[in-house]
Amino acid sequence: MTFSPPINAISYLLRHSIDFKALAACKAHSELSQDLVSDILSGGSAFASDVLAPLNRSGDEQGAVLKDGKVTTAPGFKEAYKAYTEAGWQGLSAPESIGGLELGGMGLPQTISVAVNEMLYAANMSFGLCPMLTASSMNAIIAHASDEIKATYLPKMVTGEWTGGKNLTEPQAVSDLGALRTKAVPNGDGSYAISGQKIFITWGDHDCTENIIHLVLARLPDAPAGSRGISLFIAPKFIVDADGNPGERNGITAIGLEHKLGIHASPTCVMEFDKATGWLVGPENRGLACMFTMMNEARLFVGVQGVGIGERAYQQALDYASERVQSRVAGAPENTPIIGHADVRRMLMDMKSGIMGARAINMATAFACDIAESSDNADVRKAADARQALLTPIAKAYGSDMGVSVASSGIQIHGGMGFIEETGAAQHYRDARIAPIYEGTNGIQALDLVGRKVRRDGGVAMALLIADLDDILVNVNDMHGQDGLDLGCNQRHLTAGIAAMKSATDMILAMSDQDSGAAAVPYLALCGDVIAGAFLIKSVLSGIMAGDSQADAMQKLVWHHSLKYLSKAPSHLEQIKYAAAPVFAYPQDRLADL
Amino acid sequence: MTFSPPINAISYLLRHSIDFKALAACKAHSELSQDLVSDILSGGSAFASDVLAPLNRSGDEQGAVLKDGKVTTAPGFKEAYKAYTEAGWQGLSAPESIGGLELGGMGLPQTISVAVNEMLYAANMSFGLCPMLTASSMNAIIAHASDEIKATYLPKMVTGEWTGGKNLTEPQAVSDLGALRTKAVPNGDGSYAISGQKIFITWGDHDCTENIIHLVLARLPDAPAGSRGISLFIAPKFIVDADGNPGERNGITAIGLEHKLGIHASPTCVMEFDKATGWLVGPENRGLACMFTMMNEARLFVGVQGVGIGERAYQQALDYASERVQSRVAGAPENTPIIGHADVRRMLMDMKSGIMGARAINMATAFACDIAESSDNADVRKAADARQALLTPIAKAYGSDMGVSVASSGIQIHGGMGFIEETGAAQHYRDARIAPIYEGTNGIQALDLVGRKVRRDGGVAMALLIADLDDILVNVNDMHGQDGLDLGCNQRHLTAGIAAMKSATDMILAMSDQDSGAAAVPYLALCGDVIAGAFLIKSVLSGIMAGDSQADAMQKLVWHHSLKYLSKAPSHLEQIKYAAAPVFAYPQDRLADL
Repeated sequence: MTFSPPINAISYLLRHSIDFKALAACKAHSELSQDLVSDILSGGSAFASDVLAPLNRSGDEQGAVLKDGKVTTAPGFKEAYKAYTEAGWQGLSAPESIGGLELGGMGLPQTISVAVNEMLYAANMSFGLCPMLTASSMNAIIAHASDEIKATYLPKMVTGEWTGGKNLTEPQAVSDLGALRTKAVPNGDGSYAISGQKIFITWGDHDCTENIIHLVLARLPDAPAGSRGISLFIAPKFIVDADGNPGERNGITAIGLEHKLGIHASPTCVMEFDKATGWLVGPENRGLACMFTMMNEARLFVGVQGVGIGERAYQQALDYASERVQSRVAGAPENTPIIGHADVRRMLMDMKSGIMGARAINMATAFACDIAESSDNADVRKAADARQALLTPIAKAYGSDMGVSVASSGIQIHGGMGFIEETGAAQHYRDARIAPIYEGTNGIQALDLVGRKVRRDGGVAMALLIADLDDILVNVNDMHGQDGLDLGCNQRHLTAGIAAMKSATDMILAMSDQDSGAAAVPYLALCGDVIAGAFLIKSVLSGIMAGDSQADAMQKLVWHHSLKYLSKAPSHLEQIKYAAAPVFAYPQDRLADL
Repeated sequence: MTFSPPINAISYLLRHSIDFKALAACKAHSELSQDLVSDILSGGSAFASDVLAPLNRSGDEQGAVLKDGKVTTAPGFKEAYKAYTEAGWQGLSAPESIGGLELGGMGLPQTISVAVNEMLYAANMSFGLCPMLTASSMNAIIAHASDEIKATYLPKMVTGEWTGGKNLTEPQAVSDLGALRTKAVPNGDGSYAISGQKIFITWGDHDCTENIIHLVLARLPDAPAGSRGISLFIAPKFIVDADGNPGERNGITAIGLEHKLGIHASPTCVMEFDKATGWLVGPENRGLACMFTMMNEARLFVGVQGVGIGERAYQQALDYASERVQSRVAGAPENTPIIGHADVRRMLMDMKSGIMGARAINMATAFACDIAESSDNADVRKAADARQALLTPIAKAYGSDMGVSVASSGIQIHGGMGFIEETGAAQHYRDARIAPIYEGTNGIQALDLVGRKVRRDGGVAMALLIADLDDILVNVNDMHGQDGLDLGCNQRHLTAGIAAMKSATDMILAMSDQDSGAAAVPYLALCGDVIAGAFLIKSVLSGIMAGDSQADAMQKLVWHHSLKYLSKAPSHLEQIKYAAAPVFAYPQDRLADL
């Protein structure tokens, strides 16, 4: 299956769904231009389709292998990774320098990184996880590590010569990291001896690089119990010698490889730390906070994976529907490709518009991250930071759920062929299913949204977002009917959607914790549909005003989106309103039957 | 993983969601009693949990194997099949006799068969497909074959000594059987030589029985083109000799076994017919009509599979949620099993109530089939036949979609463990995915619903169904508030749901074919939610009036159902209303990007 990245769709959103000029106006991004972006997208697209996409199916079939404590990646992955680093992709959004330390990154905004990485995930999600982990590990090091640690590890991580690994989870500590038991004992020379077992460690070991830099959560002796007694450490697979090269083997070994539903080419390791030498990153007992630095960005990128895998599944279904001849459309003289059948075309439009909506949320989230980091105005930075914090759980959950839903439709369009593994449609359905789970399940994202992001500040950040959506609606009202422009459906459903979001937010703010917990997932789903719909509509208005040649097609896509997704947002209100009552009314001891 | 069939839930619906007395009042079912049903359900439950469930995971791992033209089933399946036939389960709903021919079936109604088979599918869907094919093959033989054919094959199919196979699909003829090319040439002795290749043949070959009786669609020489030139043949794997025993090997061979996403223990064969000897079943060139006799029942049973696999996934998630301790519920002194977390409990209730709704539709469909066949009143039979024809595509699509959705939630409740194959949750997600595809994709079910079942009779059958739902609403209105009974949520959402269903039906009746094609799936989804909701509410009212001890729990389950499913029915109206316009507005040549 060939994969051809949707450069036009991505570029359109970069032009019209975010404020690209505001991004380029930041000093840190003064070299940013649509031409530069265009070049980068072309390069990323070529790499995704030429190098990564051809390895997707074979990687699924062959997977990674663990033997004698060493993980060997699927054939072709090592070479592809080498090509990835040689082309400099790992450094895309890494800084050029920090303090006096030259890193050699391109320093591009997250917004561009999201655009490029969506293509890489679409081409080969298993592959894409490796660079994602390196990037988020670098963020934590940049934010919290000492200058010495930065100088030792970052330059080789920016190039991709060394990858990053994230060691959080233990069997008894998955969603609740406060329960973890791995220990770190001071060696007396500033280093620590780390011992314990970690599970679900993505790319925890592999053969693509000469070193792997692990970030590890562990407890110091006498640390407080629970989440306030966890510290973050850095521990390389090979200890770096005085010349900065990998030297002595550290006590970090992959002792198991999970047999998973999907992403077979991404090695998911059980890691054994046996008195592994590591160094503290950030203050003692503040490890969880440090870890969240890498978590937030990773969450956005999981939403991007959902969109990527959805796009891949969509393209494959589109190819099949265009070629597969079966049955006659009413009035046609002979059998037709199934894309001519209304029901098949509806599925394709559901898929395409759903992906576009989730993509718009991802891009807005990345944009907010960029402004929060790079705006020259402190107030603007602060507001943008609240916005990215608010949007991140939505981007993660909405994008990853959309990926699963679209991949399932992709199978459906293939009919019986979709259930046969050789076709490849089933792989997307299997691969996509991890995204709603890892980096915090979508249930946890929803709890984060209602708890930390909406209720904690009394709804201030959410009110500001809704005000922005109201502004979009004002523009719709202004433009509807001008020059014969029909925005009636968008107008009607955006009006109802925003009203539902306001009403739901008021309810969430007034609830008990238990009620908001029960209402959290429906609330996130409602917000996702409204925000996606509003951002897409905004991009239509912007495109029309700019005379963009793609605005007309975009308007039609968004018409479908308003009918399929935005119109359904208010339907979540009932579950939100009644919250925990119906959920707990049924007697627990009769759940097994009646 | 143990599996404990939900006998209470199934029995409750048998008592209160259908008119069990009307069934028992039919002469053909005069021996039917709740006690008999209870015994049968107990027996089926024990067989499902003790014999079939333990083979589900191993069957998935080991699958069926094709070697030298012979299919060997996964370890344990042959023995389980023997136990199945020895216990007489295959004859559950088969006639005791037809004409003067003793068959030895138990002659129980489909309603009971659906109840029992749901448990078998839940325990082991791959296994359950084999008896399903035998049962639907028998139906076609009973309805269309000559007395000689009936006498030759049926007695050994009723016992399960021989299984049935259904050979329809060819690579170019999947949804469109009119395109098939397999040929049948008269041998001059009343038999035919059948040649061609068939794909996706479930249990097309296996080692569980000494013979396999294939029904095959093929074209006679000089048959008209398309679907009016297809005839139905019967062709056994071993030709039956004068003593009624399997004799000479026929030219029917499994030449391939598909590598599928799920149901690995069900051998899906590529079958080669090489001048296989067969005999005509039914009139020449009327094969498609004959085949539909078996198709209709099979469609209902696929809906039952969706419910079964959903129930299995639900039970596994419930077990996990009850045992897995993680994080604290607000106010709790220590970490709690995740079932105490509101979001997890919500997922469980979404799953449980969704399954119950689809189960109620299945049961109503089976009940209509039974009344259509067995009522002593011709008018009642006719009305019931129209009802079963109307409900069948809804049962198939709604139940199978529910199965996928619930299985996906089952993974989600497991978190990261759900993505690991050893856990078993992923198998349900993979197995469930075939049900929306086979026996006519759910898109084709929706087209059948809007085309043949609603538009063809001008909406008469649908109006009668809606009138029944209106009667339920009248009863809700009457009982709401009596003795403090609060049916407010049910009342509000049933009112809105029925109104939406009426409005949608009016739209569907007034549409062009293309529009109704685009609106078909949303229309079926709307109808499914309303019908399920109404039937469940009916069963609550009936249970309360009868003083049933389970009515209180049922009322709480249905409260959740009304909020989660019934309340969402009207949200499909917009896609139905706009139908094909937004679906085809987007330019086809830009679907690949923007």
